[in-house]
Amino acid sequence: MLYILSLFLIIFNVSLTIAQPTLPNTDSLMIANFYKQSLEDYLNYTDLHYLCKSIGGRLAGTENSLKAVNWLEKTLKSIPVDTVYLQECFVRQWIRGNKEVCYVETSVGRVELNCSALGTSVGTGDNGIKGKIVIINSLDEIKNSNPNKYRGKIIFFNKQAEQTFINTYQSYGSSVNQRVWGAIEAAKVGAIGVIIRSISTSKDYFPHTGIMRYVDSLPHLPAIAISTLDADFLYDTFMKDSNITVFYKTDCYEVERVPSYNVIAEIRGYEKPDEIILVSAHLDSWDIGEGANDDGAGIIHGLGTLRLLKNSSYKPKHTIRFVGFMDEEIAQSGARKYAQMIKEKDEKHIVAIESDEGGFLPLGFSCDVSDAQFQVLQGWKKLLETYGLYVLQKGGGGVDISFLKNYGVPQIGLITNSQRYFDYHHSPNDIFENINRRELQLGTAAITSLIYLIDRFDF
Amino acid sequence: MLYILSLFLIIFNVSLTIAQPTLPNTDSLMIANFYKQSLEDYLNYTDLHYLCKSIGGRLAGTENSLKAVNWLEKTLKSIPVDTVYLQECFVRQWIRGNKEVCYVETSVGRVELNCSALGTSVGTGDNGIKGKIVIINSLDEIKNSNPNKYRGKIIFFNKQAEQTFINTYQSYGSSVNQRVWGAIEAAKVGAIGVIIRSISTSKDYFPHTGIMRYVDSLPHLPAIAISTLDADFLYDTFMKDSNITVFYKTDCYEVERVPSYNVIAEIRGYEKPDEIILVSAHLDSWDIGEGANDDGAGIIHGLGTLRLLKNSSYKPKHTIRFVGFMDEEIAQSGARKYAQMIKEKDEKHIVAIESDEGGFLPLGFSCDVSDAQFQVLQGWKKLLETYGLYVLQKGGGGVDISFLKNYGVPQIGLITNSQRYFDYHHSPNDIFENINRRELQLGTAAITSLIYLIDRFDF
Repeated sequence: MLYILSLFLIIFNVSLTIAQPTLPNTDSLMIANFYKQSLEDYLNYTDLHYLCKSIGGRLAGTENSLKAVNWLEKTLKSIPVDTVYLQECFVRQWIRGNKEVCYVETSVGRVELNCSALGTSVGTGDNGIKGKIVIINSLDEIKNSNPNKYRGKIIFFNKQAEQTFINTYQSYGSSVNQRVWGAIEAAKVGAIGVIIRSISTSKDYFPHTGIMRYVDSLPHLPAIAISTLDADFLYDTFMKDSNITVFYKTDCYEVERVPSYNVIAEIRGYEKPDEIILVSAHLDSWDIGEGANDDGAGIIHGLGTLRLLKNSSYKPKHTIRFVGFMDEEIAQSGARKYAQMIKEKDEKHIVAIESDEGGFLPLGFSCDVSDAQFQVLQGWKKLLETYGLYVLQKGGGGVDISFLKNYGVPQIGLITNSQRYFDYHHSPNDIFENINRRELQLGTAAITSLIYLIDRFDF
Repeated sequence: MLYILSLFLIIFNVSLTIAQPTLPNTDSLMIANFYKQSLEDYLNYTDLHYLCKSIGGRLAGTENSLKAVNWLEKTLKSIPVDTVYLQECFVRQWIRGNKEVCYVETSVGRVELNCSALGTSVGTGDNGIKGKIVIINSLDEIKNSNPNKYRGKIIFFNKQAEQTFINTYQSYGSSVNQRVWGAIEAAKVGAIGVIIRSISTSKDYFPHTGIMRYVDSLPHLPAIAISTLDADFLYDTFMKDSNITVFYKTDCYEVERVPSYNVIAEIRGYEKPDEIILVSAHLDSWDIGEGANDDGAGIIHGLGTLRLLKNSSYKPKHTIRFVGFMDEEIAQSGARKYAQMIKEKDEKHIVAIESDEGGFLPLGFSCDVSDAQFQVLQGWKKLLETYGLYVLQKGGGGVDISFLKNYGVPQIGLITNSQRYFDYHHSPNDIFENINRRELQLGTAAITSLIYLIDRFDF
């Protein structure tokens, strides 16, 4: 450790010496030790490998999601921590069924397109849907044009995720509304089907699924996503001949709600056991990939944090609780149930931390906290910068913990390098191979260090 | 990660407005435009694809390296810029020959190990080298033990790149001396061969090559690297039975020096054409990969910078010069020749910038500049942070431009996310697929923005 510190002092000579005055030396050493242990650890990465490869995609309500619940429960018990238990919640159960088919009939023949039904879409029935297409670039375009144009047609929403944003969450935000609301707007104008260009920052052949919405008062149109390169092809083909027809067939359907579970684990606080520092991620994922970055990485960050605290023999003052939430992707049933519980039990949460930006290089934290708490965090900034955590900004913490906001729980989200996230997000390419062990482990160390500081110095 | 739209509006609303007060608005807009153009561009990435896939590995002196010279010259001319020319330099020519073979004879039979001759190693001859091994963990271990232990043996240098450093250049530094100096120390104690554990931050089956040294007064021992997982296997096997023998055969040799070239391109300054802002990278690479991150990405950063300046119709006051240096990996003949030229011509370089940390997320700049210049750079820090360039630290600029230091040229190196660099470095896995388009393009925009600021505000 001293050896490492002395090398730090050479390379990062400014940073650590600046941090010292603000923190006792033992704390700096403890954090250095978290990082050392994390970077030398291979067990967390092996766990992620198991979750991705031996279990795989784990949509809420499916058998795979229950396998993931069992695996996480067992793995947490093996650390061991003080308590591990399941919290029941009821989840919608959407079944994809047989692999989707989509093709376009062109003048030179039939060309298959890589596609995926959107999450919670109805299926097309055995005959599929066939029709001419209308291409549009924004939801507003429907509202501002003659509805007759769309009647009996398949609407192809072709808006691209804009590349110009530095942060790709903004790129995603620039086009995701066509996926979420497209089928409703299409139903309003009498269309028969919906195809969307995948919401992705990459040009490739992977379709990207994700949640979509219906309203009861309108027909429920079956909706699919096609890959970005297939979308380019479909657009180019249509520009040459607007009479082309497209066919697609999906087999998806929804059945009754079924019980599922949040997985909860705790290291009990020795001084204030009733005050909770929460770290969380979601255990469910879309079914067509392995849920590696979304959000297997977050699960490993939480699991790894408990493991790291135990292995460091650190005794927290407050209770450190990890929740692996179920059903973030469809209806956040797990997060809602958890929020209900803390209200009923009147549990005190000092802070809720969420990791749902993948296993990429961590860059800092997004904080929805009071000004006083933000000042406390800023007092640690120089230390955090030593470890590459440059960003400390006000902002939301994450989808699952947002349900705790009503109960006054401060929220913090881990910010990671966003450049690759939406290349993989909700696609068959969200796989283990796209996570780097060291980047993943830096995330675990970052969250553990933040929890340590909050636990030590109150907040 | 679900439906983020509302969240990021909260999270990122601050970022793009911070920088404005420190610079005239036109400059902020120009830089925003560099980023916009870079992130929307696919041509640079296509160029990198060509360099990696159609040319591939391009060790100085080889036919491939000359193909790369021709390609770069042609591509720069097509931008078009004001001047493109070649600068001749003579390079050592090392030939790998037939694929290396290495195996260990164990009690259960012969097991092949993934291996690569070290750069500039002599070959083993047709009979190869066979012998018992001695495992050591540091160069000092040889010096401090009885030399008889090594006589007639193959020394296996098994020091791991230490994982504990946040910056992987330090991990690399922790074990690279066994690769560079191992064969000299082994020759001193009468060993017959040298095997090193690949200097890599990853556990996989890729061998990593790299430069090694001999001294004339000692026998030149043939040296190879084996992959990290093969090194683990060899270590474990030896621990069970120290009588195992290892065989390896390499076919490499060195021939006469041959002419090669730096590729130089310029946009002439309109006000001070004799004052040069240099951006550089190296065009050669090791032969066993595609030289994608080392240093195809840097070449694209330089090429892309000229392209971006031209496409933005920016007229620089100073001459912006890009040099694609030849022979960084073996003897830096190109860089030495260039340094000699600027001395002879008494050329004034305002700054030399180098990109040789791969096409990963750019994080800032390492600056070997005067205190006054460092202050100027710090004045731009808030603006640079808007684009994720958080780091501005004192340190070296890069290997090739270091030869300009004697002539008082300030040096700046692009710092990128280092976590993955040494997973790929000098291995068959340094391929195009391991570069993300957006991350690459952020690097181009970062360098272009820095050059713009230096050109506009002097330095």
